[in-house]
Amino acid sequence: MSATGTAVRARRRIAPALAPESTPPSGLPGRVVVALGGNALIRRGERGEFESQRRNTDMAASVIVKLAETVPEVVVTHGNGPQVGFLSLQAEAGLPDVPAPPLDVLGAETQGQIGYLLSQSLRNAFGGREDPREIAVVLTQVVVAVDDPAFQRPTKPVGPVYDETKARRLAGERGWTVAPDNQHWRRVVPSPAPRRIVEAAVIRRLVQAGALVIASGGGGIPVVEDDGLGLRGVEAVIDKDLAAVVLAADVRAEALLLLTDVDGVYRDWGTPERERIPLLTVDEAEAMLASGVLPAGSMAPKVRACTQFIRAGGKVAAIGPLDAATEVLLGQTGTRIVRA
Amino acid sequence: MSATGTAVRARRRIAPALAPESTPPSGLPGRVVVALGGNALIRRGERGEFESQRRNTDMAASVIVKLAETVPEVVVTHGNGPQVGFLSLQAEAGLPDVPAPPLDVLGAETQGQIGYLLSQSLRNAFGGREDPREIAVVLTQVVVAVDDPAFQRPTKPVGPVYDETKARRLAGERGWTVAPDNQHWRRVVPSPAPRRIVEAAVIRRLVQAGALVIASGGGGIPVVEDDGLGLRGVEAVIDKDLAAVVLAADVRAEALLLLTDVDGVYRDWGTPERERIPLLTVDEAEAMLASGVLPAGSMAPKVRACTQFIRAGGKVAAIGPLDAATEVLLGQTGTRIVRA
Repeated sequence: MSATGTAVRARRRIAPALAPESTPPSGLPGRVVVALGGNALIRRGERGEFESQRRNTDMAASVIVKLAETVPEVVVTHGNGPQVGFLSLQAEAGLPDVPAPPLDVLGAETQGQIGYLLSQSLRNAFGGREDPREIAVVLTQVVVAVDDPAFQRPTKPVGPVYDETKARRLAGERGWTVAPDNQHWRRVVPSPAPRRIVEAAVIRRLVQAGALVIASGGGGIPVVEDDGLGLRGVEAVIDKDLAAVVLAADVRAEALLLLTDVDGVYRDWGTPERERIPLLTVDEAEAMLASGVLPAGSMAPKVRACTQFIRAGGKVAAIGPLDAATEVLLGQTGTRIVRA
Repeated sequence: MSATGTAVRARRRIAPALAPESTPPSGLPGRVVVALGGNALIRRGERGEFESQRRNTDMAASVIVKLAETVPEVVVTHGNGPQVGFLSLQAEAGLPDVPAPPLDVLGAETQGQIGYLLSQSLRNAFGGREDPREIAVVLTQVVVAVDDPAFQRPTKPVGPVYDETKARRLAGERGWTVAPDNQHWRRVVPSPAPRRIVEAAVIRRLVQAGALVIASGGGGIPVVEDDGLGLRGVEAVIDKDLAAVVLAADVRAEALLLLTDVDGVYRDWGTPERERIPLLTVDEAEAMLASGVLPAGSMAPKVRACTQFIRAGGKVAAIGPLDAATEVLLGQTGTRIVRA
C-alpha cells in the first residue's frame, strides 16, 4: 500500500465532516467519470481474441486502481465499436439459421461482454488492496428523441466492410443506409444525442453507496420513449463520450476523463509544427470547435463532450492516453479543459 | 388499479411496524425469487426472432406485474439455454474471422441480451401503474469450486447439434467433450454447483432499496477463485434453478418460484394414471428424489433446488407454468414444497 493510497482513504473517510460536497481539501475532484475507448479493450489489429481482451482489461483496471488513489470515487463507461463489429460479423455469418439481432440488442450483448471482462479485472485489481470495493455492471438504456435530426441523416459506420456491390445489395434487402468508408463500404446508422439514462437512479444509488459502477457501455442501449407504449429500442448508436456527459451529470461527478489512444488535443494537427495543448478554457475549446480545426470523426466529438460537461457545471474535463489516466487528470499530460 | 394492488401497497408501507421480517400479515411471503426458464423467452420451435422475444418478454412481464400485487418484492432470474445455443451457432459460423468466445463470455452476452429485453418489458409493464419501480439488471458472476467433481464429468449439452463425425473432429480440435443427444451429438460441459454470487452485496442493496432486480441470468457467469489471481471464468454452465437458491438466500427471500413450461410435479409420470401433486413436504420431496422417480434432466433438478431452498430456511418453493405464476404461489396450480 503506497503512502498516497493511505492518505486518500483517510481523507475519504473524514471528508464529509470537512466538505459536504466531497471535494478533497486539496482541490482534486472527489468523483470522476472515466470513459474508455472501445480500442482500449480490442486494440487495432486484434480480432477480439479473448486472451488479449483479458490482458487489455487487466491493464485498464490497473490504471483505474491507480486513479482511485487520487480520486476516491470512480465511475467507468466504455466504447464498444470493435466489439459490435465482431458480433455483427458473427451474426451475419450465422444467417439464415439465426436471425441477426437489431443494434439495440447487439449493444446490450456488448455491455454484457465488456462489462464482464472489465468488472472481473477491476475486482481482481482492487482485491489485493486494503480497502476492496464492490464492482457493479448496470445494464444501461439511454433515451434519445424520436425526432432527433440524426435519424434523417445516418452517418455512423457500424459492422463489417463490404465492396460497393454487396453494400448496395444489402441496403436494398435490409433497408440499410450504406456509405463509402475509405476503400470499402459500410452500413451507416443514426447517432442521435443522448437525453436521459433510464437507470440513472439505480446507478446513483450504487455510486453513493461506494460501489465502482460500470454503466452506459457503448453509449448505452438506444431507446425512444413512446407515450402509449413506453420504451423501445432503435437502430442507432449513441456517442459514448456524449453519453458519458449525461452519466457524469446523473452521478454529479466533478471530473470527466476521456481516455483514448491519442495523447491530447493538438494545435496545428497534421503539420510538423503540431503541439499538444495542455490546458484550454471552455471558451477557447468552443472557439476551436467553431473554427473546424479539430478532426470531425475523432477529436471534435471528444472536445464537444468536454465543453458540454463544463457548461453543465463540471469542474474539469480531460482527454489523454489510457495508460496515463492519473497524469492526464493532474495536467501532467493530455489536454485539460476548465471553466476559466 | 385493482383493490388487491392497493391493499398490497398499503400493507407494504406499514409492514415494518407490524412485522420486522416483512412478512405480510396474511402469511404471504414478502419477497420472492422468480426463475424463468430460458424457453419462456425463446419458445420451442422459435429461432430467436427478436419480435417473438419481445412478445415473450412482454408476456413474462405482465405475469410478474400481477405477481407483484400479491408479493411486493420480486427478484427475477432467468435461463439462457436457447440464447447460448444461437450465439454459439453464430460464433461458429463467424470462424475464423472472429474467434469464438469461451462459455463465460457467451454467458455474459446472454445476460446483456435477455436482461435488456426483459427489463424493458418490465419497465413498460410497471410504467402504467400508480407505483412504478426501478428495474435493474446486475451482471452476475457465480463462484464454483475449482475441485467440483462436475469438472471431471461434463454432462450438460450446450450449443449446436452435430453428426458424430463432426462432433468427434471438433472434440479433437478444440479439446471438447462430446456426447450423443437423441439422434445427434453435442458438446457437453461441466455443470458445477453454485457456491457464491460475487455481486451479492450490490444485488441486496438494490433489492432493499425497492428496485426490481434481474440477476444471475443463465445461472450466472461461472468463475473460479484463485488465491493469487482472483476470479477467472471457466468453461462451464451453472444450473439456473440452483443458482436461484443461492440468490434467494443472498436477498433473504421467503419464497422461490420456478416457472417453466410444465405444470408441476407429477405422480406416476409417463403413465395414464399420472396426477399433479399440489403440495409436498420437504421430506416427501427428498424421498421422491432419492427414489429416482423424477425425470433426471428436467424435474429432478427443480425439485432439488426447492428442497435446498426450504432446508436453508425458505418458507415456500413452487414449480409451475409461467403464465400462472401467482396461482402457483397461492397453491391453485403447480406444485408447492413446504417445510411440513
